[in-house]
Amino acid sequence: MISISDIREAADRINPYIVKTPLVRLANLDPYLGCQVYGKLENLQVTGAFKLRGAVNKILSLPQEQLEKGVVCASSGNHGKAVAYSAKRLGIPATVVIPLTAPAIKVEAIRALGADVVQCEVSERFRVAAEIRDQKGAALIPPYDDELIMAGQGTAGLEIAEQQPDLDAVIVPVSGGGLIGGVSTAIKAAAPDMKVWGAEPAVLPRYTESLKKGERVQVPATKTIADALVSNMPGERCFPVVQKNVDQVFDIPEDAVLKGMKLLLTEGKILAEPSSCIGIAGVLTGIIPVTPEQKICFLISGGSVGLNQIAQLENVELPKLS
Amino acid sequence: MISISDIREAADRINPYIVKTPLVRLANLDPYLGCQVYGKLENLQVTGAFKLRGAVNKILSLPQEQLEKGVVCASSGNHGKAVAYSAKRLGIPATVVIPLTAPAIKVEAIRALGADVVQCEVSERFRVAAEIRDQKGAALIPPYDDELIMAGQGTAGLEIAEQQPDLDAVIVPVSGGGLIGGVSTAIKAAAPDMKVWGAEPAVLPRYTESLKKGERVQVPATKTIADALVSNMPGERCFPVVQKNVDQVFDIPEDAVLKGMKLLLTEGKILAEPSSCIGIAGVLTGIIPVTPEQKICFLISGGSVGLNQIAQLENVELPKLS
Repeated sequence: MISISDIREAADRINPYIVKTPLVRLANLDPYLGCQVYGKLENLQVTGAFKLRGAVNKILSLPQEQLEKGVVCASSGNHGKAVAYSAKRLGIPATVVIPLTAPAIKVEAIRALGADVVQCEVSERFRVAAEIRDQKGAALIPPYDDELIMAGQGTAGLEIAEQQPDLDAVIVPVSGGGLIGGVSTAIKAAAPDMKVWGAEPAVLPRYTESLKKGERVQVPATKTIADALVSNMPGERCFPVVQKNVDQVFDIPEDAVLKGMKLLLTEGKILAEPSSCIGIAGVLTGIIPVTPEQKICFLISGGSVGLNQIAQLENVELPKLS
Repeated sequence: MISISDIREAADRINPYIVKTPLVRLANLDPYLGCQVYGKLENLQVTGAFKLRGAVNKILSLPQEQLEKGVVCASSGNHGKAVAYSAKRLGIPATVVIPLTAPAIKVEAIRALGADVVQCEVSERFRVAAEIRDQKGAALIPPYDDELIMAGQGTAGLEIAEQQPDLDAVIVPVSGGGLIGGVSTAIKAAAPDMKVWGAEPAVLPRYTESLKKGERVQVPATKTIADALVSNMPGERCFPVVQKNVDQVFDIPEDAVLKGMKLLLTEGKILAEPSSCIGIAGVLTGIIPVTPEQKICFLISGGSVGLNQIAQLENVELPKLS
């Protein structure tokens, strides 16, 4: 179980590699969402997503002889970009295994950072990465189920508690649980009155099912428009942390996600990938209840999105304001 | 000539109507622009542009009996939206005269705020507005050539000086000169070491021509892709302020503007209208010289842009990073 001191240590360790992302007031969204809207803009993080925090924390903790053999990871995109960037900064080799379903923009971004790219079926990605680990002696950098990864992601929560300590709640996109595990640990220690809520795709309800049952449940693997949130089971190390520190997890339907993305872009003027807009989608559709007095911060986790995906928003309808 | 005390008074007056917009670090733009990039996000202002600052400052300064007769303005869009919003907040009637060339999204936004809309040719807009003033007894709210308007816009400069006092320069989009007049006055008083640079469309070089000649020059009216920067002559009250406080004005070619917009959107994750990206365009194309040590803040003036305009960016080429 990670603690706040793991997160503070991570913050010191990763400080030269990341930026402290802005937490901004997004007042133009208030009339749509019915609360006072804030955004923690991890899409403005180096490499375009929060993933760098965990990846660079993990890699900086490896022994020198391991570093020289390089690193390998399996990733739907942003984690791979973070690992590739970290390896480039440290001058070590990196191999990134990417599902064939990942947007081309993410694959190109990883190649541009100098990593070797191997593509395979989503379901095969961890097996392929383990093979490469064994062949090359490279260190496997897991996407979420790791205490150093979780502690690194938690540094975003530390920043939130410091930047806007009077928030009523922070809403975090959920997949394996690395981000919300770290962020909730930081917030419960640094700003105990602040709620931490998760938002996951309703088609992949791995956390609501697991929290209901009191143990990790594997749900059927499936695609989601929130293509960075594809894990179908909570991480073993993440689950107890989420159980302890997260106040509630909400299941958000597929058709709401692009509404959230369109609202954030056209009214909020912030470009984020669909996965990052799942919390906004949850509030917009009334699934996550809020009140006008509440200060709600959405953790905008990443911005890997192509212009072609923006074009699809033309046909998405937003509610009209009265 | 406005002074810093006019701007401080405006700040107190307009405080309940505006938000203090975030000034954010945009580190992912550094490798493209060759400096340390910051953005002052007036596209996150209420009504989506800095224009509310000046409009509400002017309107709040009108005598009560004038307020009851309402307000009228001519505007390429954002000023009209700001006047309409101010009138709605104060419960007074507003008429907005909009050029036929303005994007539909801007026209709809103004109607949605409850204002009467009158459309006409760009060249006729001030005449039509004056007619409506005479017919209705409404107060004409000028877009820039007014000391209260300029002082209101200057509050953005006060915020910049307070939020990031160690900036080397602020780059401001230029049209009639209301924004840069106010902002430069604030910055030269509150942070005297900070440079203030203007960026105007090369097809409408009203400020470079006027500054060269030492008096206001009218240049031929023409269209520009920076469709909020269409004035063809410096404002009478703005020109001496700009002459005194602005360090340099740069002329930016048309084909650079959408490159700046695409860079800010795809790498910076911020959606802004073309006019707001003219400074980024200037640095990206090397017209505005910067160095890697310099902290440069771009004033992102507004975000009125439709999804169809984003689709056009598909064909715009950005420089590849090596």
